[in-house]
Amino acid sequence: MSIRIQKTFEGLFALEEIRGLFRESLPTGFDAGEEQAFQEKVARLKAIVADLEAGTGTPHVTKIAGTLDIRSREEESINIHPIQAAGRLTTEARKAIISYGDGYSTCDACRKPFRLDKISRPGIAEFHADLAKWLNMDQARVVPGARRGFQAVAGTFVEKGDSVIVSALAHYTEFLAVENAGGVVKEVPLDNRNIVTAEATAQKIEDVKAETGKLPVLVMIDHFDYQFANEHEIAGIGKVAHQYDIPFLYNGAYTVGVQPVDGKKIGADFVVGSGHKSMASVAPSGVLAIRDEWVPKALRTTAMVGDLTKRKFGIKEVEMLGCTLMGGTLLSMMASFPTVKERVKHWDEHVKRSNYFIGRLLKINGSKVLSEYPRNHTLTKVDTTGSFDTVAKTHKRRGFYFSDELSSRGIVGEFAGATRTWKLNTYGLADRQIRYLADMFSEIAEKYQIPVQA
Amino acid sequence: MSIRIQKTFEGLFALEEIRGLFRESLPTGFDAGEEQAFQEKVARLKAIVADLEAGTGTPHVTKIAGTLDIRSREEESINIHPIQAAGRLTTEARKAIISYGDGYSTCDACRKPFRLDKISRPGIAEFHADLAKWLNMDQARVVPGARRGFQAVAGTFVEKGDSVIVSALAHYTEFLAVENAGGVVKEVPLDNRNIVTAEATAQKIEDVKAETGKLPVLVMIDHFDYQFANEHEIAGIGKVAHQYDIPFLYNGAYTVGVQPVDGKKIGADFVVGSGHKSMASVAPSGVLAIRDEWVPKALRTTAMVGDLTKRKFGIKEVEMLGCTLMGGTLLSMMASFPTVKERVKHWDEHVKRSNYFIGRLLKINGSKVLSEYPRNHTLTKVDTTGSFDTVAKTHKRRGFYFSDELSSRGIVGEFAGATRTWKLNTYGLADRQIRYLADMFSEIAEKYQIPVQA
Repeated sequence: MSIRIQKTFEGLFALEEIRGLFRESLPTGFDAGEEQAFQEKVARLKAIVADLEAGTGTPHVTKIAGTLDIRSREEESINIHPIQAAGRLTTEARKAIISYGDGYSTCDACRKPFRLDKISRPGIAEFHADLAKWLNMDQARVVPGARRGFQAVAGTFVEKGDSVIVSALAHYTEFLAVENAGGVVKEVPLDNRNIVTAEATAQKIEDVKAETGKLPVLVMIDHFDYQFANEHEIAGIGKVAHQYDIPFLYNGAYTVGVQPVDGKKIGADFVVGSGHKSMASVAPSGVLAIRDEWVPKALRTTAMVGDLTKRKFGIKEVEMLGCTLMGGTLLSMMASFPTVKERVKHWDEHVKRSNYFIGRLLKINGSKVLSEYPRNHTLTKVDTTGSFDTVAKTHKRRGFYFSDELSSRGIVGEFAGATRTWKLNTYGLADRQIRYLADMFSEIAEKYQIPVQA
Repeated sequence: MSIRIQKTFEGLFALEEIRGLFRESLPTGFDAGEEQAFQEKVARLKAIVADLEAGTGTPHVTKIAGTLDIRSREEESINIHPIQAAGRLTTEARKAIISYGDGYSTCDACRKPFRLDKISRPGIAEFHADLAKWLNMDQARVVPGARRGFQAVAGTFVEKGDSVIVSALAHYTEFLAVENAGGVVKEVPLDNRNIVTAEATAQKIEDVKAETGKLPVLVMIDHFDYQFANEHEIAGIGKVAHQYDIPFLYNGAYTVGVQPVDGKKIGADFVVGSGHKSMASVAPSGVLAIRDEWVPKALRTTAMVGDLTKRKFGIKEVEMLGCTLMGGTLLSMMASFPTVKERVKHWDEHVKRSNYFIGRLLKINGSKVLSEYPRNHTLTKVDTTGSFDTVAKTHKRRGFYFSDELSSRGIVGEFAGATRTWKLNTYGLADRQIRYLADMFSEIAEKYQIPVQA
């Protein structure tokens, strides 16, 4: 780790230790012993800051809680990990979790009716309203990951043996959500471009009806899938679902938070997004946005009455299990939200950079792109069997030579050892970072005599 | 906010901004413009540290992301909030979320078989094994809050119309978990001390059997309830459940992480704990520990096969929906764990302090304790109708006078405005903090001429 990055972490940790002193003291202030401990810790902090400024010194802290390494890959490197790129915290989110990390930190001013989305200090109620509006839906709830959004919707509609339409590229969490609700997935086939079309979806609905004698109870399709990040015919699919009167869940795990999403335009009954995947938030977090029509069903409040006490917990929503994200997860979403709202407007620039990088990769002889091309997304599946893998075949480190070469250039997040088909995500990189990334791929190719077109 | 606490936050935030510079730069280091920005930010940091040291200066940062207040109540005050006390982060947990706050930060070294609890860097697999052993159970999984543990177990055992035994003091999330699975709660009555006994549980099982013709499918009881934090006959209840061959879920939301819990001694088939309530962790987090006997059922892996692609996601667990806490939530649990393991050994000291405070409160004329007394827990329901509420009756601020008096003495976390029956939790306070707390209650009483016994 660069010494300046090391000292940045040490400074943060020293301040957390100072913070610990305040937590242990009386509200009346420090006693003499605490004041001394405080001054000692401040002296240490000053030495750290001096090293930070000068770029000097040696690492003093290398572990957290005695066992955890400091994770500095976002500071040290360009990270092209397929699922990490858009979940990196904003600076404001990092400040928010410093301030709101403690357990139930959202609950300081929780008042009747005692539900997370009704809290106004901090502005959680307002955030919920903003989220719904931003997605052009009627209501929004935060959930512990997109998968918990799928679960809530599947739990609402799916009875034992019911069919749910998913894509042939559906994420495993959609399978699990349907299975958990007792349903069966029915996959829509891809066309020859690996796209899920509206037509194929309509045909699949017909097939299911013919086969089972019943219509599917839910259509749940990813706008961009996790494998190729190809763009599927989501608005057309929404239309088809409505023609059959089947509720439509739009899986925006790879869109909500990086590109504009207009739920009503898409025809979505439910929009699900992922906080830790695409909204610069702490895991597990996500959003479930709903049209008013479905609120009484999907956000139904509890009807359970204690047989003995006759207790009722009237306003608590069954599928949410009451409150969902009662601390740092939610506050990180809220703190990132202004940035997220702004960044989706610049999605085209991120796609352009993605295409620039893939274009450069394709100039490396033998490289292919397995995703649709030109790209409509920053996540891409590439095939370097004909390029970088030709070296791996005879290299003593096998495919790991490629990881070594990347990491020595400050690039991380590739699947270590993989040189055939693998995925990368360039989301969030600036122009010069993209150029650097492309240059480094070319440099590695040239080092191993893989021809690179000019 | 005290200026030193203010400057501590400003220092942390300034370092996060410096960290942002590293994130935006190339792996090759800063260019001239970045170096200048860096030096400017370091200069600002140095000024903050100088103010921190001297206790001088004025607040420069008051909002995060333009809207969120800095939450400093743990630094400023003694916080007796009923559900926040044991969820406060340890210093190591705060360091961990600084380092691991980013989205999918746990996934850097995820390899086959691609499941959270199998990851060895950071030591997530080892943590899972440690958690299970610590609770004297066979397997453990982390979950997004205790409620998600209830949901997983209810989802496993409960079919439509099935009965689940809960306590007459059951938490609302148990109601919701049962309702969500299609079941019906059946409450065990309290005895005249507000305790759930083994005998009453056996009787309730018999009653349900007589009434419905079927045995309940699950017994789910809180060791300490959320209302009074009375201690219920948990080991006896475990025994009763086993006599009827009904699986027994031990709800340790108020025990796991603050007092020793021995799952097998209790006779628990499932132990559920809460990270943000009692394990000094970021919300939502928790643990579900399981006996081997139930693993094939409750942690069943997916059996769903894509009808078209024949895809299977074999190792993913249906009730967990695959991975659960993929970032800062889990890392905060892990970083707090060494402290948590140690602190449970000192539970008796925390109970002793709780009794000291309640004893002092009872010396204030007219005060009562509604929880069992002497206390076996740090969470207590008190009744100050005969003491502090007598003032509220005529005070122009009504019950809020009491909040005002407390907060002016650096005490927060009471239910604002409540002067009749309310709850408080003294967990984590040191001797002198407890004495201070008791002294301040006496001082307020005396100020309003409420007699205080010597």
